[in-house]
Amino acid sequence: MTDPKTTPAGSPREKLPLHQYLERMTLEEKVAQLIQLAVPFFEGASDAGLITGPMASLGITEQTVHNAGSVLGMAGAQETINVQRTHLEKNRLGIPLLMMADIVHGFKTIFPVPLAIGCSWNLELAERSAEIAAKEASVSGVHVTYAPMVDLVRDPRWGRVMESTGEDPYLNSEYARAFVRGFQGRDLTGDLDRVAACVKHFAAYGAAEAGRDYNTVDVSERQLREFYLPAYKAALDEGCEMVMTSFNTVDGIPATGNSNLMRKLLREEWGFNGVLISDWGAVKELIAHGIAADEEEAALKAMKAGVDIEMMTACYAHHLAELIGKGEVQEALLDEAVMRILELKDKLGLFENPYRAADPEREKEVVFSDEHRAVARELAHKSSVLLKNDGVLPLKSSQRVAVIGPFAKSGDLLGPWSWTGSKDAVVRLADAIRGKADAPANVTVADGSDIESMTEEQWAEAEAAAKDADVIVLALGEHSDMSGEAGCRADIRLPLAQLELIRRVHALGKPIVAVLFNGRPLDLHGAIDESNAVLEAWFPGSEGGLAIADLLFGDVNPSGRLTMSFPYSVGQIPVYYNAFNTGRPQGAPDAQVRYVSQYLDIPNEPLLPFGFGLSYTSFEYGDASISSDTMTPEQPLTIAVRVTNAGSVAGIETVQLYVRDISGEVVRPVKELKAFRQVTLQPGESQVVSFELREEQLRYYHSDLSHSSDAGAFHAFVGSSSRDNACLPFRLAK
Amino acid sequence: MTDPKTTPAGSPREKLPLHQYLERMTLEEKVAQLIQLAVPFFEGASDAGLITGPMASLGITEQTVHNAGSVLGMAGAQETINVQRTHLEKNRLGIPLLMMADIVHGFKTIFPVPLAIGCSWNLELAERSAEIAAKEASVSGVHVTYAPMVDLVRDPRWGRVMESTGEDPYLNSEYARAFVRGFQGRDLTGDLDRVAACVKHFAAYGAAEAGRDYNTVDVSERQLREFYLPAYKAALDEGCEMVMTSFNTVDGIPATGNSNLMRKLLREEWGFNGVLISDWGAVKELIAHGIAADEEEAALKAMKAGVDIEMMTACYAHHLAELIGKGEVQEALLDEAVMRILELKDKLGLFENPYRAADPEREKEVVFSDEHRAVARELAHKSSVLLKNDGVLPLKSSQRVAVIGPFAKSGDLLGPWSWTGSKDAVVRLADAIRGKADAPANVTVADGSDIESMTEEQWAEAEAAAKDADVIVLALGEHSDMSGEAGCRADIRLPLAQLELIRRVHALGKPIVAVLFNGRPLDLHGAIDESNAVLEAWFPGSEGGLAIADLLFGDVNPSGRLTMSFPYSVGQIPVYYNAFNTGRPQGAPDAQVRYVSQYLDIPNEPLLPFGFGLSYTSFEYGDASISSDTMTPEQPLTIAVRVTNAGSVAGIETVQLYVRDISGEVVRPVKELKAFRQVTLQPGESQVVSFELREEQLRYYHSDLSHSSDAGAFHAFVGSSSRDNACLPFRLAK
Repeated sequence: MTDPKTTPAGSPREKLPLHQYLERMTLEEKVAQLIQLAVPFFEGASDAGLITGPMASLGITEQTVHNAGSVLGMAGAQETINVQRTHLEKNRLGIPLLMMADIVHGFKTIFPVPLAIGCSWNLELAERSAEIAAKEASVSGVHVTYAPMVDLVRDPRWGRVMESTGEDPYLNSEYARAFVRGFQGRDLTGDLDRVAACVKHFAAYGAAEAGRDYNTVDVSERQLREFYLPAYKAALDEGCEMVMTSFNTVDGIPATGNSNLMRKLLREEWGFNGVLISDWGAVKELIAHGIAADEEEAALKAMKAGVDIEMMTACYAHHLAELIGKGEVQEALLDEAVMRILELKDKLGLFENPYRAADPEREKEVVFSDEHRAVARELAHKSSVLLKNDGVLPLKSSQRVAVIGPFAKSGDLLGPWSWTGSKDAVVRLADAIRGKADAPANVTVADGSDIESMTEEQWAEAEAAAKDADVIVLALGEHSDMSGEAGCRADIRLPLAQLELIRRVHALGKPIVAVLFNGRPLDLHGAIDESNAVLEAWFPGSEGGLAIADLLFGDVNPSGRLTMSFPYSVGQIPVYYNAFNTGRPQGAPDAQVRYVSQYLDIPNEPLLPFGFGLSYTSFEYGDASISSDTMTPEQPLTIAVRVTNAGSVAGIETVQLYVRDISGEVVRPVKELKAFRQVTLQPGESQVVSFELREEQLRYYHSDLSHSSDAGAFHAFVGSSSRDNACLPFRLAK
Repeated sequence: MTDPKTTPAGSPREKLPLHQYLERMTLEEKVAQLIQLAVPFFEGASDAGLITGPMASLGITEQTVHNAGSVLGMAGAQETINVQRTHLEKNRLGIPLLMMADIVHGFKTIFPVPLAIGCSWNLELAERSAEIAAKEASVSGVHVTYAPMVDLVRDPRWGRVMESTGEDPYLNSEYARAFVRGFQGRDLTGDLDRVAACVKHFAAYGAAEAGRDYNTVDVSERQLREFYLPAYKAALDEGCEMVMTSFNTVDGIPATGNSNLMRKLLREEWGFNGVLISDWGAVKELIAHGIAADEEEAALKAMKAGVDIEMMTACYAHHLAELIGKGEVQEALLDEAVMRILELKDKLGLFENPYRAADPEREKEVVFSDEHRAVARELAHKSSVLLKNDGVLPLKSSQRVAVIGPFAKSGDLLGPWSWTGSKDAVVRLADAIRGKADAPANVTVADGSDIESMTEEQWAEAEAAAKDADVIVLALGEHSDMSGEAGCRADIRLPLAQLELIRRVHALGKPIVAVLFNGRPLDLHGAIDESNAVLEAWFPGSEGGLAIADLLFGDVNPSGRLTMSFPYSVGQIPVYYNAFNTGRPQGAPDAQVRYVSQYLDIPNEPLLPFGFGLSYTSFEYGDASISSDTMTPEQPLTIAVRVTNAGSVAGIETVQLYVRDISGEVVRPVKELKAFRQVTLQPGESQVVSFELREEQLRYYHSDLSHSSDAGAFHAFVGSSSRDNACLPFRLAK
């Protein structure tokens, strides 16, 4: 590969102290450092000059491109080398380009979508997945990934719930840390197999009203701090280098122009001094939001808020110099932003080595390696959630299996945000099942329907496939475009064509195993009752087909647990486990029949709760114990419970610890996850799982937004889900 | 009747200066003034002693009852006289009882439900309805009504949307004022035909999460002030005597224990010095909410928040004296509360005349008088909204009409909160239609189904009724228990049995007119497309059957306009017209195909928007004009438009003026109603409708919660609904 020591252009290069770059830069060069453009703008790229659509009207000059600070959506070792080399030839001061891309759940080795990873409750594997993604991305020339996405989510209509790890602030925070560790490692400068992480979307994007992407967010500052902010903060505490703004408003002001959020909270209160980047086009979108009259005001507000990099619009490019000239923006603000960008480039070692790990030869070895794929397969095992099983699972290799449904032969198992992956490399579920069967001829396959339509020919084919089968595996779900960014659905059932397919297959009277591929919690009415078993596979990634077959045939025992509630119906949204009690809770001892908080037509509880998931074995819980009935700040409690594998196969149990503050200064959730432990138990094996619970874990935001605990009564709950657990009362004394 | 001058007990009574009552009262007597109990606690009541259920466990002593300050749910002239007389005999200081009741949309003369009244856009009739309700209630012995309810509503799942006038803060405020004027008149002391009003539920009860009654409310303070608070404030500005707390949390603290809301905002900032009452049981519910460990803490928090009257729990009765003894509550706080209650009694003249207008003889004349019923009929005319009409309406008296559906012969037209009304007095729709027909035999009637079920016998009867009909009137809807308090539905379609009825009737191939009786905006799929005309009758009240027949036969031309959006489906909730634009609005000139704020499966727009409603005539709008392209604080604008009745019958058009602030310091709604005018036009008649628009109307809450306007670009919209209007750009110069 090109030797960075000798510089690509052959001309002598030197790395100056960073402030000297700043001193030598013209105003235009400084402004251009803040600009991020897509690949086609750059010479050397394979699609250079293919600037169409809105990009064409950006009004970016060739000189601005030469001075630009970063590029997005770029990957491929040779491609990035070509672009960097050309850029360094054109850039007056030889400042390298930062290359960024959305590497969300894997690069070429695609892992399950983050919501699925969440369901693994396995932080080590989550970290490992990010580490592998970083390694593949880095060798392909990527420096920064726009991940992790840590938005707390409560509305399955929103397509981006698949990018989040779920509805719990503690669990999301733990995953945020794990992903940042995985992407960045301990030494971003020295470890070239890592990339810088960019936590997003700051803040509270997951609370988009009506589950419609980009829509208004309105939450109290307390809710913001209690539920939405912790995971971003956790990522930053773990050293995450960058932050991305969210598209939504926060307290009436779009995040990208929100000084209270960015300048005051993120930078001043939290002390974040890294690079803050807008989401795609979000600076100019301040106009559509209605807080900027024009591009100039948009640039002014974003700059004042502290947005360093403007992604894919040109408000800074067109107006920042003028705003500084008019004295409306202090040049010091611009200098700070430029320095933050230069510092990140320096931390990544780009001044000395502008190609970093990009290496076309090593790329071939590293990317999509067997080792990486094995991890993807393991994570798909751990991420799938068994929602129902009357004993039909696991399948036996001797059984005649009909695999029916639009996902039987589909490669669409990667899910949204997998643009660097390849559907062609995905082993189809039907093929994987064939691989498990004693005889391939025992496995029949038919589409039965498309995702959203069904023909009578498809049904006839399905009926024929089912004819001699002992069991029918229905491979159902949502097309990957039905979730992800802008992939919002007002109806969260399986598409009607597939509900019809289930109905017809059910009428055949044979055992049904439904395997679901989807990017959101679904209303499973019309699917779960009609099936003997349901395996939630999410979008399981490159190795998903193989992994699901492993699970179906019992080579691996399912262990995933939901991290987002499955609503009873769309009319129940939002439904989440860590809600408040209300003054008239259903089921209270003195509750009236009518005048309680409830619906007339559906239960309050979700169909499937947070923390829920089945196994092929069964776990028995002994009586839980608590070390004392009183906790003090100095004296933590120990909560312990014996868990026994009472079944006949080994399995993984996720023991969960929740707490409820019975009476606070403000209302407190009926349950809050405080800790969890996974144990692997052989048949008959038992283990005592114990947790230490400390006073810090009982702190919350009071009405004055102070963060502290209150003396008084609490309940601890320990068990296998947010629903199934034993209650241990205690008091906090202070 | 009993002469109040001579006092009921025959013993000499005198009215002392109020402070002397306070001085003479024992601590126990003071505390008891703050207690409100239901009728059965009081001697002299017809159901005295019938204390069952939770009431029995309240732990209220006989002495406390004798000292109690007020009673709820009481009505009837003789009954209230009996109770008051007995009370004055037992009460040591001769302090009369305040008698309160939920007189929400009429006493015995039941008007349409408030959401329907909202759709009249007729403030005069709204005021008149409250005036009549007050007169009937007052002569029946009621002193205070728990009305108006002015909660802004956006979620039709919530059963109490029928108690509100809708989703617009301006319109709700105007109705709040009208209702307060109607209930209280100008001189509450001198005008015995009036009752004190109690605005509720303070605050933001309408934002109950997931549309589930009593559920958590979480909104930013900006949203609270911009959307939710104005109508309460308007009621108070109009002189409303009382305020009721809401069941929900506001920023993490239940309203009833929320000092920030009650003490700081309501009392200090707004200067409200009237009586603040808890909603039913809401003081004790602070325990279930989890901000009070026990009744004592609940009493402490409610008292500190400024709640004067505790309704139907006994936290004050059991603990307030002790809290004062311990110094945790200052007795001055109690004295203030007692004085506010005594002052209200004095303002109502109860010390001089404890029976006020209660008069068994006059009661017979006043209550349910022809005059009152005529107003109820007129308001039902004006409240019904014609949602669709392909020309099948109005019906002709010569037509053979089949009236089919569970509301054909139902008296359940009064709606929730009509406990003082009588369903028996309601003329059934089928009877009213018979009254319009040339020959009664031309009208056939059948249930077709019950509200939530259908038998084949019912269908056979319906089919027979339809056989010779020229047109079928389908009388459909929700049982009144399906809305109202705790009447929440996760599925907001018509019940499935009725959708099946529509389907079958539609298959008969005859013209269908659907008349809907319901308490919330419904998802009308399965009903509107299958019908030739749809008339939204809501719960139209005592005279509803007659009024709907008037409309169906064209004796009156429908003129109602929706004040709450009808969602496309439950998955679209919340959907409301005065929403924010987002950064990626659908339909913008440079919008991408996918990456805009939208659903994949339904439109963003509601099925039927705010302000929408049809007529039997058509109105043509000329070009709208604006007096200048620039407004200043000193120079308002005049916006004018010529409206012409282009049809062949007289009609009422509601001309609506909306404004959009194109760019604000915080995001602004895409439209905000600023004014409206109703005009009655004869066929061919035209009229210029003009509005003055002033700078004050452009003010909003900024990020620092200051309330002011910003110079810049605005759009005014004038037209017939929030959807159909002409845009007039202007600038505000300051």
